[in-house]
Amino acid sequence: MRVSELSARSGVAIPTIKYYLREGLLHQGEQIAATRAEYDETHLRRLRLIRALLEVGKLPVAAIKQVIAAVDDETLPMHEMLGTAHYALGPTVEPEPGEDWQAARAEVDRLIEDLGWAIHPEAPTRDELAQTLVRMRQLGVPIDLRPYVEAAQRLVCEVEMNKVPFNGPRDAAVEALVLGSVLYGKAFDALRRMAQESESARRLR
Amino acid sequence: MRVSELSARSGVAIPTIKYYLREGLLHQGEQIAATRAEYDETHLRRLRLIRALLEVGKLPVAAIKQVIAAVDDETLPMHEMLGTAHYALGPTVEPEPGEDWQAARAEVDRLIEDLGWAIHPEAPTRDELAQTLVRMRQLGVPIDLRPYVEAAQRLVCEVEMNKVPFNGPRDAAVEALVLGSVLYGKAFDALRRMAQESESARRLR
Repeated sequence: MRVSELSARSGVAIPTIKYYLREGLLHQGEQIAATRAEYDETHLRRLRLIRALLEVGKLPVAAIKQVIAAVDDETLPMHEMLGTAHYALGPTVEPEPGEDWQAARAEVDRLIEDLGWAIHPEAPTRDELAQTLVRMRQLGVPIDLRPYVEAAQRLVCEVEMNKVPFNGPRDAAVEALVLGSVLYGKAFDALRRMAQESESARRLR
Repeated sequence: MRVSELSARSGVAIPTIKYYLREGLLHQGEQIAATRAEYDETHLRRLRLIRALLEVGKLPVAAIKQVIAAVDDETLPMHEMLGTAHYALGPTVEPEPGEDWQAARAEVDRLIEDLGWAIHPEAPTRDELAQTLVRMRQLGVPIDLRPYVEAAQRLVCEVEMNKVPFNGPRDAAVEALVLGSVLYGKAFDALRRMAQESESARRLR
């Protein structure tokens, strides 16, 4: 298809497509004449992935480039490739100096070991959870993560990961992971606040 | 106690305390001499609440003022008072024109009715969830909210709302609601991404 059709079918404006081509986010089409290139389904799939990372994942272009590089690096196994998108979606947390941080981080590491979860030793989620534990402790919020661990495990294993096409094209798997992870996260946030309102009404009225 | 002790015990700097007094976020102390005011536990509790709204809830000062006004309006029942904090914590979502939005919003209203949840007809969480459903539909993400509804209900009823001291001082109840809601939300986010990594490893290795 020509770039005009690629634009129409993807919903991405032609100047934006040209920008992605220049930045290397989108692979070049097949040059069939001096002023005409031909695009195919792989370009459509890539544009869908870029939109998912940009509009739903809210990732900056630099982070999108890293994810795309991982998708394009066929020597990188699927699990590590998904990890680049996955880690990019989370907040960046800097470890803090001091004993509170050390204790919280050790607690997170112990929790992961007790659960038998396969989490990379340097996964940023470890520091992210440690930071939340430090804040909880500082502010006197009681900490019992077990019900949250169980809910996360159930939702991820029984629902979310079943939606990711692990055996399909790499672009499509990353896209499904990003869309599912972010959008179900948003839906859950809203539902949780609704449940709080309803339970508050039930207890107080 | 004097303002210096209030500062030391609350961890809030004196100029900041004076700013809160000027803005009406913190009630005046008892003037016991021309240049000396006396503060008590109610001031400490209020400063804890302001910090929770500011540092954990990330609310702008204008929103904090609204929450504080509701806390101070003793004619406002506890449930409505908690609602001001609760609604302020969520994102602001503008309804979109078009049939997709209407359909999604109707679906949300039906879901709430089916669940028997007590949610205000104009609660912003209704539009928030509708927006996520519209995005899911546009992007072809399959929608099955039931497991998320069940998880939210269980966590809120069996854990979170048990931590809110509904019968204590109004400041303390709002503080507990904000801290619990935001910090457990963050912890759950991290745990969910950890579970995704672990489950991806399990399926792909």
